[in-house]
Amino acid sequence: MFYLESSDIMRLRNLKDKDILLSECQYLIQNPKDYKSKWNELFGNSSPIHIEIGMGKGDFIYEMAKENPHINFIGIEKYSNVLARAIKKYPTVPNNLKIINIDAINLGDIFDHEINTIYLNFSDPWPKERTKNRRLTSDIFLNIYDELFKDKKMILMKTDNLGLFASSLVTLSNHGYVFQEISFDLEHSDIPNVLTEYEKKFHEMGIKINYLKAIK
Amino acid sequence: MFYLESSDIMRLRNLKDKDILLSECQYLIQNPKDYKSKWNELFGNSSPIHIEIGMGKGDFIYEMAKENPHINFIGIEKYSNVLARAIKKYPTVPNNLKIINIDAINLGDIFDHEINTIYLNFSDPWPKERTKNRRLTSDIFLNIYDELFKDKKMILMKTDNLGLFASSLVTLSNHGYVFQEISFDLEHSDIPNVLTEYEKKFHEMGIKINYLKAIK
Repeated sequence: MFYLESSDIMRLRNLKDKDILLSECQYLIQNPKDYKSKWNELFGNSSPIHIEIGMGKGDFIYEMAKENPHINFIGIEKYSNVLARAIKKYPTVPNNLKIINIDAINLGDIFDHEINTIYLNFSDPWPKERTKNRRLTSDIFLNIYDELFKDKKMILMKTDNLGLFASSLVTLSNHGYVFQEISFDLEHSDIPNVLTEYEKKFHEMGIKINYLKAIK
Repeated sequence: MFYLESSDIMRLRNLKDKDILLSECQYLIQNPKDYKSKWNELFGNSSPIHIEIGMGKGDFIYEMAKENPHINFIGIEKYSNVLARAIKKYPTVPNNLKIINIDAINLGDIFDHEINTIYLNFSDPWPKERTKNRRLTSDIFLNIYDELFKDKKMILMKTDNLGLFASSLVTLSNHGYVFQEISFDLEHSDIPNVLTEYEKKFHEMGIKINYLKAIK
């Protein structure tokens, strides 16, 4: 499959100019902890804040930010190699988009009840039982997310991986989420959809995309 | 697909001896309303009661009753044509199995907070928006089931139809159910499983079976 496991990411060739790309990027927040409880101040407005955990090379969040000027977007990505590629691809972005280089496990240091929506797109499925806690919909992460959300919680998830999708439906429902929408073939549904990098490849290969919209 | 829609069922050739099969069957309850609140008396024990709505030709519920002598099973089937075929196939059954010829919409006349588990196996998907209320997991039916269950509610569902499965996940979660187990390939999961007639055909054709276990 197309998923890059941690070991693969580590082998990803470093961009020669990675450090410069990261240090000079205007929309990469270098010291995100300083903005805890102050993200709306940073954006200079009171618009809702949506985050994508695992933004990869950024196609999804860049397009979302362009299409939705009245929403603030923050992309989270733990691998600086990957983030450098996003920065290279998108040297300038709209003012309503920021990015952060951090592991999702530490998101509680960055946000305090101030976000409205979380996007999980093609997250690592961690298929083995012994690593299931690393899935971004494990109880460990759902507990972290509870402290990030402002009020009403909303998670939108896309994945081609049925194992991850099944386990997410179970953990989310047991964590108090209810499902507003579910599709097993997002491309051929009438649900509006902005494509990620992975998704474009999947469409070409005829692989079906699973989607859920969960609220709490 | 293999689903028999109402119009197909009506065309099912009547068994010549249908009326005799139905009237002489020892385990078909002719007057089920008389047993409302008294099903455990009828079975002569206090074991839990499980019902299958849409038992079809009965392979699943017959095998379940044989394998689980300490559970009482009641098969529900609205089409007498279909029920007659089940009776012909299974002339004698264990004492812990009864069957009823009734439309599920009337189940509130038959049970009053006395059942423990509902099985929905390969229910008619009613794929069109205008007939979605006829799905056995529509809000209309979930409200009916609330009055049948004794205490803790449990619904186990199997279907090959992803449209029905998606809509069931949405309606069940919005009705307060949480999912204990979900599989998109029941045959190759480690979940214990008794096969229905449909399912045997699906396995031969390599069609994957979706499964959920929901509790409330």
